[in-house]
Amino acid sequence: MKPTGLITLTTDFGMQDGNVGVMKGVIYGINPQARIVDLSHDIEPQNITQAAFVLSRHYRYFPGGTIHLVVVDPGVGSERRALIVQTAQALFVAPDNGVLTYVVHDARRAIKHIIDISNPEFWLPYISPVFHGRDIFAPVAAHLSLGVPPFAFGEEVNDLVTFPLPQAERGEGKLKGQVAHIDRFGNLLTNIYRRDLLSWREIKVRVRNREIVGLSRTYAEGQEGEVIAYIDSSEELAVAVVNGSARDLLGAEVGDEVEVVGQ
Amino acid sequence: MKPTGLITLTTDFGMQDGNVGVMKGVIYGINPQARIVDLSHDIEPQNITQAAFVLSRHYRYFPGGTIHLVVVDPGVGSERRALIVQTAQALFVAPDNGVLTYVVHDARRAIKHIIDISNPEFWLPYISPVFHGRDIFAPVAAHLSLGVPPFAFGEEVNDLVTFPLPQAERGEGKLKGQVAHIDRFGNLLTNIYRRDLLSWREIKVRVRNREIVGLSRTYAEGQEGEVIAYIDSSEELAVAVVNGSARDLLGAEVGDEVEVVGQ
Amino acid sequence: MKPTGLITLTTDFGMQDGNVGVMKGVIYGINPQARIVDLSHDIEPQNITQAAFVLSRHYRYFPGGTIHLVVVDPGVGSERRALIVQTAQALFVAPDNGVLTYVVHDARRAIKHIIDISNPEFWLPYISPVFHGRDIFAPVAAHLSLGVPPFAFGEEVNDLVTFPLPQAERGEGKLKGQVAHIDRFGNLLTNIYRRDLLSWREIKVRVRNREIVGLSRTYAEGQEGEVIAYIDSSEELAVAVVNGSARDLLGAEVGDEVEVVGQ
Repeated sequence: MKPTGLITLTTDFGMQDGNVGVMKGVIYGINPQARIVDLSHDIEPQNITQAAFVLSRHYRYFPGGTIHLVVVDPGVGSERRALIVQTAQALFVAPDNGVLTYVVHDARRAIKHIIDISNPEFWLPYISPVFHGRDIFAPVAAHLSLGVPPFAFGEEVNDLVTFPLPQAERGEGKLKGQVAHIDRFGNLLTNIYRRDLLSWREIKVRVRNREIVGLSRTYAEGQEGEVIAYIDSSEELAVAVVNGSARDLLGAEVGDEVEVVGQ
Repeated sequence: MKPTGLITLTTDFGMQDGNVGVMKGVIYGINPQARIVDLSHDIEPQNITQAAFVLSRHYRYFPGGTIHLVVVDPGVGSERRALIVQTAQALFVAPDNGVLTYVVHDARRAIKHIIDISNPEFWLPYISPVFHGRDIFAPVAAHLSLGVPPFAFGEEVNDLVTFPLPQAERGEGKLKGQVAHIDRFGNLLTNIYRRDLLSWREIKVRVRNREIVGLSRTYAEGQEGEVIAYIDSSEELAVAVVNGSARDLLGAEVGDEVEVVGQ
Repeated sequence: MKPTGLITLTTDFGMQDGNVGVMKGVIYGINPQARIVDLSHDIEPQNITQAAFVLSRHYRYFPGGTIHLVVVDPGVGSERRALIVQTAQALFVAPDNGVLTYVVHDARRAIKHIIDISNPEFWLPYISPVFHGRDIFAPVAAHLSLGVPPFAFGEEVNDLVTFPLPQAERGEGKLKGQVAHIDRFGNLLTNIYRRDLLSWREIKVRVRNREIVGLSRTYAEGQEGEVIAYIDSSEELAVAVVNGSARDLLGAEVGDEVEVVGQ
């Protein structure tokens, strides 16, 4: 897996202040041939869980050798480590704060190396203690994209910080999970997956005192304004309002309980 | 007209969830040389009319051979078709839901081919019924950008869905139109065009009980806070508040009646 | 300093209307090899001061020869000039309205040339009086990025519009400055700089009736919810709430007085 020069960026910087743009300036200064894709910069401030989730839904769709840079970093400048994680498919560059939890969970034994970034040779000459995105992470990602091997950036380590993934609980004929993410359309994505539902012929989904009978295949199968359950694009059980917002209609929030009753 | 590798994206996905980024990952996986331009991802959810309007104002300014991909697609996964529309100038890839209405209206006989996308050879191997943007549209656009001819993607068809364009009505010494779009500055863009006004020496514009006498050439011709009428950058009659928001000051909305009295 | 094909864009256009995308279409039509970086498009409408500040924090981090295009232009179409400013490091293209004030202040004698853009040979054939970004600035930046020398675009001039930089006032053992910018996290960036504080061993920072004793090096040094003062990534004294928003907690606004008492 050789780097392809493709770098994705996921941050909580927003676009108003230019902090994303300046990272791209640093990257292009080091690798003028880089191609940079914004994955999301609208992660809620300091919301590591949300960044981890958004990254987890998309990274598999990028070509092998893509470098995924994640800067949601409330511990910037502290003793928290900065890591390069190399899998069979991709390279991840991120603070060691759990933001790669899903990646690690998915990859398991396919994680090849974890490097503790410590070699200042590949950083900008002056490091602001509050903007490692610009001064450490961006130049490291850029040098990686040129083919500098991960070992050049620091020592190999054996572990990294992960948070416990909120797992759906299975009971007698039922599953209890949570709303894991609410997307731009107000759709509620859960931590219950299609594979969890395979043993049942019929299901009911309950969220916020609403019961939905059966799964729709598409939004268009429901009537305008109807609450439907369906399988979203990363195989998650999800709840939507047709041409509307389930978040607004149901008053739903991330963390809300979702119950599936099957038979 | 050969594809140039330039692809524009217009969606209602927003930037928070990474759904735009993943489409770019798919495109770069197929055509590493593609150049991708975001036209807008802040189309209101499911607002086909708005997407059609935004696309209509800009596509002419892109180099010949540009591929314009539009994914505002409430009917995703249903029987609605997915189309490639080839004009003398450009290629459009979109669901068949009216989002190309202005393009078709502008091009008339210059539409060369309409292809019903049906050949899964150019799609991702697994298709989510709720994210054709990633699984069908992005790979089709990427293959088109490599020079795969439109006919390879499916059968030619003769028609596509369009909606009736809201036309200004001409009366005795007057015109009645509507607010067609409100931009980021709160300027009101109408469906009355410069050419509609050429026969008059003087005009008055009425919207939301406000009457504006004459056209300003620039914002700077008015006083701070003044309501002015002017010709916007795609030749539309428009109403603005100098260094302010006509939407906020007048309480205006898309669809509001706009009357021009001329002599 | 040869142009590298790298162009940054800073505007108040937002992303919803496609006005940024169309500028990129014009640029790619002229220079297909251009690389374009969005610095910010969420500058408040007509807020020249904010655009000047955002640009000032980032331009130094781009490779030599980068072209920085700024279109925050309430005077578009009026007699205000359009300029190319060449420094030892970079090229700036902008309306002559003060948006380059910090650049000029930083560069002083390093400004090599100021060109009044007047040669329509490098513009689009038809010029909308309300969208010079698309019709004049974008094509000028694109031609510059191809290596067309600045002199080809118009006559050299000797001056440009700048606004007085809000300077911190030094008193007996104290400094008075202002909040210059509030970022996405709600952090308050001031016009007091690290160098202004070097003579003191201990400082207190006062803003909105809140007194903060001492400087934190990182956000993580404070407790969750604590108000801290620190040096931000462009050497500005700044005030933050750890994992929160100083803007929201303190009700702060741009222009608020900030006082530093030192000893």
